Amino acid sequence: MDTGTAYEFTPGLPRLELTQVGRGTPYGEVLRRYWQPIALSSDASRTPRQVRVLGEDLILFRTGRGSPGLLYPRCAHRGASLFYGGVERDGIRCCYHGWVFDTEGRCLEQPCEPENGLHRDRVRQPWYPVHERYGLIWAYLGPPDRKPLLPRYDVLETAAADESLITDGSGVGGGGPAFLDFNWLQHWENVLDPFHVPILHARFSGFQFSPEMALMPEVQFEYTACGVRSTQRRFLGDGRTLRRVTEVMFPNLRVVPSPRLKAGPTNILGWVVPCDDESFQIFTVAKDAAPDFLIKLRSTYGGKAWSELTPEEHQRMPGDYEAQKSQGTITLHGDDHLITTDQGVAMLRRMMAKQIRNVADGGDPPGVIFDGNDVIAIEGGNFFEDQ
Amino acid sequence: MDTGTAYEFTPGLPRLELTQVGRGTPYGEVLRRYWQPIALSSDASRTPRQVRVLGEDLILFRTGRGSPGLLYPRCAHRGASLFYGGVERDGIRCCYHGWVFDTEGRCLEQPCEPENGLHRDRVRQPWYPVHERYGLIWAYLGPPDRKPLLPRYDVLETAAADESLITDGSGVGGGGPAFLDFNWLQHWENVLDPFHVPILHARFSGFQFSPEMALMPEVQFEYTACGVRSTQRRFLGDGRTLRRVTEVMFPNLRVVPSPRLKAGPTNILGWVVPCDDESFQIFTVAKDAAPDFLIKLRSTYGGKAWSELTPEEHQRMPGDYEAQKSQGTITLHGDDHLITTDQGVAMLRRMMAKQIRNVADGGDPPGVIFDGNDVIAIEGGNFFEDQ
Amino acid sequence: MDTGTAYEFTPGLPRLELTQVGRGTPYGEVLRRYWQPIALSSDASRTPRQVRVLGEDLILFRTGRGSPGLLYPRCAHRGASLFYGGVERDGIRCCYHGWVFDTEGRCLEQPCEPENGLHRDRVRQPWYPVHERYGLIWAYLGPPDRKPLLPRYDVLETAAADESLITDGSGVGGGGPAFLDFNWLQHWENVLDPFHVPILHARFSGFQFSPEMALMPEVQFEYTACGVRSTQRRFLGDGRTLRRVTEVMFPNLRVVPSPRLKAGPTNILGWVVPCDDESFQIFTVAKDAAPDFLIKLRSTYGGKAWSELTPEEHQRMPGDYEAQKSQGTITLHGDDHLITTDQGVAMLRRMMAKQIRNVADGGDPPGVIFDGNDVIAIEGGNFFEDQ
Repeated sequence: MDTGTAYEFTPGLPRLELTQVGRGTPYGEVLRRYWQPIALSSDASRTPRQVRVLGEDLILFRTGRGSPGLLYPRCAHRGASLFYGGVERDGIRCCYHGWVFDTEGRCLEQPCEPENGLHRDRVRQPWYPVHERYGLIWAYLGPPDRKPLLPRYDVLETAAADESLITDGSGVGGGGPAFLDFNWLQHWENVLDPFHVPILHARFSGFQFSPEMALMPEVQFEYTACGVRSTQRRFLGDGRTLRRVTEVMFPNLRVVPSPRLKAGPTNILGWVVPCDDESFQIFTVAKDAAPDFLIKLRSTYGGKAWSELTPEEHQRMPGDYEAQKSQGTITLHGDDHLITTDQGVAMLRRMMAKQIRNVADGGDPPGVIFDGNDVIAIEGGNFFEDQ
Repeated sequence: MDTGTAYEFTPGLPRLELTQVGRGTPYGEVLRRYWQPIALSSDASRTPRQVRVLGEDLILFRTGRGSPGLLYPRCAHRGASLFYGGVERDGIRCCYHGWVFDTEGRCLEQPCEPENGLHRDRVRQPWYPVHERYGLIWAYLGPPDRKPLLPRYDVLETAAADESLITDGSGVGGGGPAFLDFNWLQHWENVLDPFHVPILHARFSGFQFSPEMALMPEVQFEYTACGVRSTQRRFLGDGRTLRRVTEVMFPNLRVVPSPRLKAGPTNILGWVVPCDDESFQIFTVAKDAAPDFLIKLRSTYGGKAWSELTPEEHQRMPGDYEAQKSQGTITLHGDDHLITTDQGVAMLRRMMAKQIRNVADGGDPPGVIFDGNDVIAIEGGNFFEDQ
Repeated sequence: MDTGTAYEFTPGLPRLELTQVGRGTPYGEVLRRYWQPIALSSDASRTPRQVRVLGEDLILFRTGRGSPGLLYPRCAHRGASLFYGGVERDGIRCCYHGWVFDTEGRCLEQPCEPENGLHRDRVRQPWYPVHERYGLIWAYLGPPDRKPLLPRYDVLETAAADESLITDGSGVGGGGPAFLDFNWLQHWENVLDPFHVPILHARFSGFQFSPEMALMPEVQFEYTACGVRSTQRRFLGDGRTLRRVTEVMFPNLRVVPSPRLKAGPTNILGWVVPCDDESFQIFTVAKDAAPDFLIKLRSTYGGKAWSELTPEEHQRMPGDYEAQKSQGTITLHGDDHLITTDQGVAMLRRMMAKQIRNVADGGDPPGVIFDGNDVIAIEGGNFFEDQ
């Protein structure tokens, strides 16, 4: 008699506590304890822009004074969207009845009302604090009494004379479109999965990165104060060893040095920012002398970019996007068979569960800074060593 | 510490009792106590047409004898749609097995059965009564024992020698497409919101109507026997005052005189007819000498019609459609901050709630006529007065 | 007062126990007790293919050895889809970490693991048994201990010298597209409804088949060991009678001889295979000398194929697809008014309900064969008889 047929198989469940991002969800509250990049600086302008972050729809704009603002879209008066608002010197004016709000949601004018609104100070448009740094707009969507400092990163703070910062929101590292249509965690935990590299990125689809990456590495995983780190050693056959260090840092930072193997400490950081439970965007900052450094990182297939491939070519030459998206919009974690090579993924999930409990119990999650030194040290990189 | 951030904000709820239109819903039963325009007369033909009104899908046709019929779409026999039916002299024949129904749902033939169906009189295709007037098909979808007369309107009953009636279903007054994809009430209550006119229609998007409409009016609201009326006075600076009267009449009539300010009693009436909870259509009847009078009312933007604008132009030059649609598919009434200039909206919502209770208690809502004088007097208009 | 209006009408319910096809549903378990055609033989190749059958998503492929395989799509390791897998000599390799599975789901390799996976024999990718016959891939999705023989059919086993088998998955007999987007039972029970032929296929849309089919037949229905049979007699006016026999055989076989009236026992069999509750595909096998025999069966309208018609032409010339689809995605069986001419449909629904109880009680449904003679006799055909 046949054994193991699908007739007896019952699919497992997703681990929603790790994947959901909305307000009040377990990991959504962890994410909300950190500043998050939500847009490029250039996205904040006199033209209001809709952004979706952690399941919340918001309107981003920049006042005539140059200050970025991030407001709840439905006008506090009658609910017309501030997407249609007119940006002025000090705020944004709703198109319907002309109420004006500043970047902290205070109502400055109610032009149809007597004396421009005698009680306009009783109205507050819901808002979030924002900052600009590294060419990105950062927002804090968490509890006001826990708002930390916006951190700096050592690898982005020191640049050689010919280097500058490059900012990107087009999905560098995702292997697909700018907005990725599946759960963010499938991408983030992939950072701790160095074993897929020689299979997916070399055996399957040609050398998507560099020939050295086709070698099966020796890997060590370790917890850090702020996340999980993996150190991969590849013996290059010429007496040298490539020691490659990748890591994730809470709550959603990816530290993946160039897969083209630029030597030294990484010059790239990326944030895996959930739009909602079923989509995310990657914001990347790099430090390099070449303005097109990040664009050149992206894989091509016979000279074609990902977006130019046919469905048949996508099937034949899958990359990170195809592998991770095909796990499902939200993968069924309960079906996973984690084994020795999945140790990094298992460690990350354990640490996430631990921090969910920590935050729910009133604690501060790892890496938030309230005073003192706001510079975070990054260990990742490609290090070529003589044996 | 930050105050008023969106982290603590909980969105309000829609008032479903005012917005829902289906059978058995509070205001849906108020709507069903009146005749409703459901199509242009020219829409009823030998080609069956699908219409959706008050959440019900129905098939409209016109028999060979010239009588319009409005039937439930699924054939009483086996459920094939009468959309595919063949219209004959006395009714419509289902394409599947040929049953024929007249305009009151009686089964006239069952051609596959012995003797054309010995028991065909036991079958009744669900139907609704219809009338034609003013170039429109009117239907009564309510309880048969409460069916009122189909009313006339004084402003449409008297025409000068050169005037004729003009009928339109393309969304005149809606500022957008023919089928509007949000809740009907957001449009209807806008009729009682004269203050948005100088903001949305003048300050924001150029002079969408006439320069006089850019002036902030003095406004009085009052209840009438059948709805709510607003009287707006604009001091024109040349010694004259424009007294503009708009009103809503139960359950969904909009009385909005020409925003191009044609003087005198209004020559336009419009019905805001819900297709379902999330979409509606506007049927308009005007009396004028120019056949294109209604088409010329529609706003243009730099010579372009609404449907020709790019998304960027829609954002930069919003009109009624953009403002009302952006409130949400069904706005969150619980979030509204109604203040002095919203008195008309507040009065209308109170009157709707009162009539919901009245109808639920077995009463007749305002303006239904069962006998006697069936002509309704309309007060709306643009009146230029010397001070 | 009006009677019979739709205001008092409450729509009926679908009979889900007859229509649903998923694992654990009443008729879904009946369907699972038989082999089902799921694809053409040519669909199984080195390029993995997604198939959806009885509500289950599966991956079909053919190993380098030539064996078709049908596996659950999500890799047992981390859930990446085997749609992106690479087919090898003995199985399919997941693109993400390279696990290899054979056609019975056994894990042959785990290339990132020490020694290719010391415990790989503990993993089983869910799979289903498949066979090839008549140019089709057949799968058994039911309980392993009840797996019957894959039957043969007498009319397909004997071919004249110039005849060969023709296989089709493009929707022959459905009157529409290859994938039909409504419940399968609406199509299947139509086989027992000979009365619609002179109405839908002759009176309405011209002679979709042959002129003789426009004659209203005399019909007898009878239960058989494996389903329901209808015998239709048409008196041709030239002294001859056409005796046409159509039947359905459990669980979803349609025996409909050529409506172009090729004489003799039918040379066509068709399986109505549900993709899920709301869509299905028809697999057809014919035995004929002309390779385009099945393609020529399809109706044309003024020289145009179904897919070339405009929406207006579809409305004016409905066929089986329009009639059955318009009953609804799943028709409301509770609204049916079954009368004398619907006897076949009523008999089929009764037999389905009886077999649902039989299978739920542990019995074997009609026509499953566990040993001995595996050839099923088919009675259907077009027989021209002298009176």
